[in-house]
Amino acid sequence: MTDDLRAVAWTGTALRLIDQTVLPARLEYLDVEDVDGLVAAITTLTVRGAPALGAAGAYGVAIALLQGVREGWDEATATAAIARVREARPTAVNLAGGVDRVLPHVSGGVEAVLAEADRVVAEDLAANRAIGAYGADWILARVERRPLRVLTHCNTGALATAGWGTALGIVRELHARGVLDRVYVDETRPLLQGSRLTAWELAHEGIEHYVQADGAAAGTILRGLADVAVIGADRVAANGDVANKIGSVGVALACADAGIPFVVAAPTTTLDPGTARGDDIHIEERAEEEILTVAGLRVAPAASRAHNPAFDVTPARLVSALVTEAGVTTPAGH
Amino acid sequence: MTDDLRAVAWTGTALRLIDQTVLPARLEYLDVEDVDGLVAAITTLTVRGAPALGAAGAYGVAIALLQGVREGWDEATATAAIARVREARPTAVNLAGGVDRVLPHVSGGVEAVLAEADRVVAEDLAANRAIGAYGADWILARVERRPLRVLTHCNTGALATAGWGTALGIVRELHARGVLDRVYVDETRPLLQGSRLTAWELAHEGIEHYVQADGAAAGTILRGLADVAVIGADRVAANGDVANKIGSVGVALACADAGIPFVVAAPTTTLDPGTARGDDIHIEERAEEEILTVAGLRVAPAASRAHNPAFDVTPARLVSALVTEAGVTTPAGH
Repeated sequence: MTDDLRAVAWTGTALRLIDQTVLPARLEYLDVEDVDGLVAAITTLTVRGAPALGAAGAYGVAIALLQGVREGWDEATATAAIARVREARPTAVNLAGGVDRVLPHVSGGVEAVLAEADRVVAEDLAANRAIGAYGADWILARVERRPLRVLTHCNTGALATAGWGTALGIVRELHARGVLDRVYVDETRPLLQGSRLTAWELAHEGIEHYVQADGAAAGTILRGLADVAVIGADRVAANGDVANKIGSVGVALACADAGIPFVVAAPTTTLDPGTARGDDIHIEERAEEEILTVAGLRVAPAASRAHNPAFDVTPARLVSALVTEAGVTTPAGH
Repeated sequence: MTDDLRAVAWTGTALRLIDQTVLPARLEYLDVEDVDGLVAAITTLTVRGAPALGAAGAYGVAIALLQGVREGWDEATATAAIARVREARPTAVNLAGGVDRVLPHVSGGVEAVLAEADRVVAEDLAANRAIGAYGADWILARVERRPLRVLTHCNTGALATAGWGTALGIVRELHARGVLDRVYVDETRPLLQGSRLTAWELAHEGIEHYVQADGAAAGTILRGLADVAVIGADRVAANGDVANKIGSVGVALACADAGIPFVVAAPTTTLDPGTARGDDIHIEERAEEEILTVAGLRVAPAASRAHNPAFDVTPARLVSALVTEAGVTTPAGH
């Protein structure tokens, strides 16, 4: 399935996205041809995942250029439209990175932009394959138990990237090497990327997996049911602090307490040397309704408010290994 | 509202329960008059919360006696029926404790059993008031910030007890003393006792509160947004290890890392000297559907399995304070 599945693909005239809001009930595609549509797709998480957002940002510049031609935009309008794409979500560095990567090619026209966007995708796919191999090597060298029981959070697979996946790419690689027992998948409230997306990818691969409440992660780890946790990243600060989906730092704390590795997998495009440390990362606050309603049903009283940060920050001291396509570093120093 | 609200009340002929499965949408009562109905109410969490289960167990013996009279049960049938109530849920010690408390009164007839069950309720209510005062005193002596920001998990209020609440009783006491800023309420998947029940109680009291995903708890604590966490307990082992709703140990780990107190509130009826340590506590595994569906809607692929432990164990070393009606102990030793 991995080779067929493209969360983000250029059709020639539009950006074709897998609509991740309706999975796993239905596999539907959305063709985006204008900036409003792309910004909506990004903010609603029709497309999500840091590396996939990088690709969406790169193609988004092409969409803006094509729309500008159709609608006779002046340069200021085009610049503002590109800025809207770039800032549609604040935490993942890849979105802005994808936009910035192709901007120097705008003077070469839309074909040059598209060619560079294609390179963003090809490089991400290659990076993910390398991350999978480096990550599997590192884990197998440090964890004795065979087969391995892995815990993961959110979705970091083909749907979150140009293909294969980052943390889930490591899981796929372990499976391919025949050393994977099972995967514990945190459901990842509020938007359930774990139960809806990661479980869907693992089911397609025939990988044994168990969805669990996010609150169960620490207990699963402390009870010795998992040998390693692998997660992705939306932004890695210069000091090694990692912003990732809300719930990640709780997994990291449990791993540290239990003495099992906490592995972060991300392409180097997710590293942000311009951000000194985790405290400087802007944490996106999302709509309260994501918490106060479930499947359209209000679950909390009318008078209740919600606190809905989309991400948290794991300090570098809790990160056993940071796996990129360039290799493995060990921020926690052990 | 607290004085009017009784999760468990004897009508004279039946046990009247607030149906906690339909809150906060509707406040409905269920009158239970036979053992099948009571076991169903306990297993579906129509009535839940360790101290409230203690009361339900005590009155459950009276229900069995009355049903036995109506249906002409022999002693073996009555004994088996009482055992079914006693074992309807395995983790909370209070359910079995409530049954065992009234059993010596069976020889005195149903009136004697009911009188003892009434004492169970009265003592729990008094214990909760004492817990609130002791807990508030302890927290205010150790936490400087005013007003306080408190994080809690699951529901430990009037709905979980004979009234007032344990951990939520401490919250109420802090509010009554005018030193409470706000409460962060973990929604508590899978059954959302936080967003459905705790938020409902806090809304009734007019206490400012913010529901959050369970995964957000660690981040909220590490970002310095909470000054103290207070939770309940379903069973406290002899060594001080605490079994409580799944997700509790993650809160404890975050508190330890951030250096803020992790306070466990429970009546002495929840202490179980017969269980040496947390590893010996039977952790209830509940139906996979609680995880794989949300509000009746399947959220995970058909091929996916779930891991659904209802509780986790927080080691005593992470418990800053254990507050009972007898006072405060400090298992973590600081």
